[in-house]
Amino acid sequence: MSVNPEQEQEIESLRAEANVTRRVTSQGLEQILYEVLPVLNHGFVRVLDYMGDDGAVVQAARVSYGKGTRRVSEDQGLINYLMRHRHSTPFEMCEIKYHVKLPIFVARQWIRHRTANVNEYSARYSILDREFYVPEPEHLAAQATNNRQGRSDVLTGDDNTRVLNLLREDAQRNYAHYQEMLNLDDNGKVLDDSRTGLARELARMNLSLNYYSQWYWKIDLHNLLHFLSLRADAHAQFEIREYADVMMDTVEKWVPQTFAAFQDYRMGGTHLSAKGLEVVKRMLDGEDVTQPDSGLSKREWVEMMAQLGREG
Amino acid sequence: MSVNPEQEQEIESLRAEANVTRRVTSQGLEQILYEVLPVLNHGFVRVLDYMGDDGAVVQAARVSYGKGTRRVSEDQGLINYLMRHRHSTPFEMCEIKYHVKLPIFVARQWIRHRTANVNEYSARYSILDREFYVPEPEHLAAQATNNRQGRSDVLTGDDNTRVLNLLREDAQRNYAHYQEMLNLDDNGKVLDDSRTGLARELARMNLSLNYYSQWYWKIDLHNLLHFLSLRADAHAQFEIREYADVMMDTVEKWVPQTFAAFQDYRMGGTHLSAKGLEVVKRMLDGEDVTQPDSGLSKREWVEMMAQLGREG
Amino acid sequence: MSVNPEQEQEIESLRAEANVTRRVTSQGLEQILYEVLPVLNHGFVRVLDYMGDDGAVVQAARVSYGKGTRRVSEDQGLINYLMRHRHSTPFEMCEIKYHVKLPIFVARQWIRHRTANVNEYSARYSILDREFYVPEPEHLAAQATNNRQGRSDVLTGDDNTRVLNLLREDAQRNYAHYQEMLNLDDNGKVLDDSRTGLARELARMNLSLNYYSQWYWKIDLHNLLHFLSLRADAHAQFEIREYADVMMDTVEKWVPQTFAAFQDYRMGGTHLSAKGLEVVKRMLDGEDVTQPDSGLSKREWVEMMAQLGREG
Amino acid sequence: MSVNPEQEQEIESLRAEANVTRRVTSQGLEQILYEVLPVLNHGFVRVLDYMGDDGAVVQAARVSYGKGTRRVSEDQGLINYLMRHRHSTPFEMCEIKYHVKLPIFVARQWIRHRTANVNEYSARYSILDREFYVPEPEHLAAQATNNRQGRSDVLTGDDNTRVLNLLREDAQRNYAHYQEMLNLDDNGKVLDDSRTGLARELARMNLSLNYYSQWYWKIDLHNLLHFLSLRADAHAQFEIREYADVMMDTVEKWVPQTFAAFQDYRMGGTHLSAKGLEVVKRMLDGEDVTQPDSGLSKREWVEMMAQLGREG
Repeated sequence: MSVNPEQEQEIESLRAEANVTRRVTSQGLEQILYEVLPVLNHGFVRVLDYMGDDGAVVQAARVSYGKGTRRVSEDQGLINYLMRHRHSTPFEMCEIKYHVKLPIFVARQWIRHRTANVNEYSARYSILDREFYVPEPEHLAAQATNNRQGRSDVLTGDDNTRVLNLLREDAQRNYAHYQEMLNLDDNGKVLDDSRTGLARELARMNLSLNYYSQWYWKIDLHNLLHFLSLRADAHAQFEIREYADVMMDTVEKWVPQTFAAFQDYRMGGTHLSAKGLEVVKRMLDGEDVTQPDSGLSKREWVEMMAQLGREG
Repeated sequence: MSVNPEQEQEIESLRAEANVTRRVTSQGLEQILYEVLPVLNHGFVRVLDYMGDDGAVVQAARVSYGKGTRRVSEDQGLINYLMRHRHSTPFEMCEIKYHVKLPIFVARQWIRHRTANVNEYSARYSILDREFYVPEPEHLAAQATNNRQGRSDVLTGDDNTRVLNLLREDAQRNYAHYQEMLNLDDNGKVLDDSRTGLARELARMNLSLNYYSQWYWKIDLHNLLHFLSLRADAHAQFEIREYADVMMDTVEKWVPQTFAAFQDYRMGGTHLSAKGLEVVKRMLDGEDVTQPDSGLSKREWVEMMAQLGREG
Repeated sequence: MSVNPEQEQEIESLRAEANVTRRVTSQGLEQILYEVLPVLNHGFVRVLDYMGDDGAVVQAARVSYGKGTRRVSEDQGLINYLMRHRHSTPFEMCEIKYHVKLPIFVARQWIRHRTANVNEYSARYSILDREFYVPEPEHLAAQATNNRQGRSDVLTGDDNTRVLNLLREDAQRNYAHYQEMLNLDDNGKVLDDSRTGLARELARMNLSLNYYSQWYWKIDLHNLLHFLSLRADAHAQFEIREYADVMMDTVEKWVPQTFAAFQDYRMGGTHLSAKGLEVVKRMLDGEDVTQPDSGLSKREWVEMMAQLGREG
Repeated sequence: MSVNPEQEQEIESLRAEANVTRRVTSQGLEQILYEVLPVLNHGFVRVLDYMGDDGAVVQAARVSYGKGTRRVSEDQGLINYLMRHRHSTPFEMCEIKYHVKLPIFVARQWIRHRTANVNEYSARYSILDREFYVPEPEHLAAQATNNRQGRSDVLTGDDNTRVLNLLREDAQRNYAHYQEMLNLDDNGKVLDDSRTGLARELARMNLSLNYYSQWYWKIDLHNLLHFLSLRADAHAQFEIREYADVMMDTVEKWVPQTFAAFQDYRMGGTHLSAKGLEVVKRMLDGEDVTQPDSGLSKREWVEMMAQLGREG
């Protein structure tokens, strides 16, 4: 389970609040505020706070004094225009704050996005929980042979079992030794009065990368969409994609018009190079273009034909 | 006047809103939300939106699940500790959005702070208003002779009058010619049907740097405090300091505990160099240190004695 | 002229240097280092320093210990791959420093790119030169009627002459009054001993936005390419595009392989939305798609047909 | 050992280069360019590239056309002034690129500095080496009891031995299982033809946080000094401080004048709060101030007395 009963109660108490504000609110996002949205075996995403809505994007594009026209169809058209022409600054006027619990190897990919504000749970000060990630058997993929970065088919039979056992046993042993070095038990009590516990900042190095950490992560809407376009993409590692997918839902609830434009112009679209555009033009003119006379490398050709849904 | 009656009405309608939210609210800041806080002759600062409060700083430092202890005295102690030891990330968890109207030469200093999000009124699309800054007579300072950057005494008599007249006349003439080049009158109507108006993006170059622009400016609390520590400082140009002073008040209303710590540890404090610290230690030991045997340059010595409130 | 004889001599002396270094060098860029590359009537771009070359991009992508394979064809393939898949970090390993002289209204657009390091000539400390931008007569464009941001045909006859005269006269008068307020002549001598000069930080506000400023501007290759993709674009204002075009040449000299990939994948390419991609697929399947049954708005349809080089 | 013979040879070949450049060079830094500067048991710091020197800082502060005056004493005075008054932009004109090999738990602290450019060795693509950090016995410190973040005395006798053994055995076992899951031996050959290897991006999660990673890390001088002021500080964890100390030496070789100012105004100095400054003034006036009548909290009092080298 991701949160303990005490935490659950704290969350319920926050959700019971009904404060009055002059600020704009997003009704969709208010519904799920503070809620634990589970990801992987012990992780989660929680929306803790936000600022602005679709109207704030529109208002910033117009630098108006009030709310602007607020005709929904016009707003959608303007948001589409901004997204299509890659205007970034109006989307920066919205901000969101998440609480995320995630395996350390996922955190290491995530933190490479430098445009967010972060406060991470510190294992220099505190003890990490005995919670680690182990993939579901159906996600234990083999190494791809044609792509050094990728996954291939799922391991089967003994191969699958062996890996799961190794991951579980090593993680448990590492944690037991972490506690032994700290000289502390599960309740934070001293294990053996005759021994001295190692400093937390040192003991933590014995934990493996599948242990969970957690942080507050705050980011503006423009940079969040950039993060999601990379991390909800098919090339992203499955584990971080699971987080990105849950966050996509929160964005849809928060700023539905921006989300619709994002889906159309970013997630679903494609980019053509100058040479690729030339090929498409020739094909539209009825020419039967082949890779050798396309000016594209084999790899580019294959990628583009896949994008266009055509056999190479 | 800073805003016209139509804008005033829009603002009143925003202030009349009473939305329900589960988010934390800052009662102090809600009081002045959307209000026009006047600065200089035509400028203003308005708080348009915000996220978080003092509690969000505390919560981030603890990465807790709920609201934390919420004992005010403990919170103040933790905030003091964070400010004293220059922990920046917890203060980044709060965000504020301003609407600012300001002379272009002030905007040029302001924009050098790169950590904010900005949407500026565009003179490529729109016509700038006939509003320009002219200092009050008592702020028409002479060039300092001992400091290439500073101001000296106020100009008097004819010197003062001459400057004010030049500034006013040139600004007015520049604007009249701006309109003539655009071929538009005060109501945006074509002035002369037989002529063609110049593109806005070109005509604007005839306006002087005291014309007003405006923008939305969004920033996190940590970077806002850094901005204010530089721009509310005595070395900052008077005109930008006027804005910083008004913003200081908004910070006090928003996050009173953080503001108190900021006043104590940043605005009111001082920094001693290694050599300066050595001198203070010697003085505390009763030694009568003089500049020549202090290890400090004359300039450093004078600066430090001033900080310590002592005659050099 | 952009630089005075004394500055020219300083530049020649820098160009005469031949230092020995273990660092990688870019022979193409060394050729033009420190040179004044003129832009507009008084502006320029100068490359002052740089770090890295195409090999540094490749090396970073591989995190190798030495120079890597250095087979040119492989390097180009890898750089193409990185550019195609929008990998940004390897391009961040190269850095360049420019000295730019530019009209203030151009500087105001330019500075919106927050990812660079900047040191600007300060009119609080120093006197600005009597140098202002006036467009060539053939660039005095009328306001576009179909696009609030754009330019239309060039002004002709009296319209053209009137604008040029207004711009010149106002700029000269503003500068004369700037000097009168400062109480300084062209040589920086006091004009009238009986008067007191206004502080520089105040007097500058009388100058118009076509006056030249200058700065050092340092940026990494990734962010430079982003800047150029926006500012060398047809939608950018002509005056800043003139700078971007000159800088494009410097990039080609510096990192020719990266430049080639940039031209193919960014400058010359196009982006298709999800709906736009669907339309292209239907057209490639031989369907005669029209705007009403395309799912695209009229504006999107027109933009896409233009990109595909087809009649709508 | 940190690097293998092949890498050593690559490095020697880079060090043998003697390229001619018009750029400024730093003779001090050229001496150690590319060299392996060892840190901890398997880590290192290497300087791979740089841009600018002390003169570039001075030149940026003056925005001059050539090299400026180049009188060393004046330059030092200006650099001192810039450092004392926290002018940051001139120091941003210098840039340096490091190659760093470091334990993952150190990398996780390091990456929190968001102002650098980073390319990290990817364990999604490649196999990590069997190299992990184990502290020297004299650095196996106990948890501090008065400070949740700190270290106390060194573990002795059996306590010390037990920890070292646990760290070593777990790290070795984790790596053996990492290889077993990958189904690869030390030479990257398949271990068992009848089994399928797990994807690299999954297998890596079994490694512990003391395993070494490596990256290219590029940063400007201003942000580097900020990083060093935090990470070479006594409050930083010993392991990252070891890296910071080695990097301090590289800065001294690179920009000796900036380094001297940094030592005096940052590393060796101290900050007084408004209340603390008041106390110092009273003490200098001969008053015998005690904590209760100082206006400082006990903790602040103790910290300040320590800074002033006095008994509380």
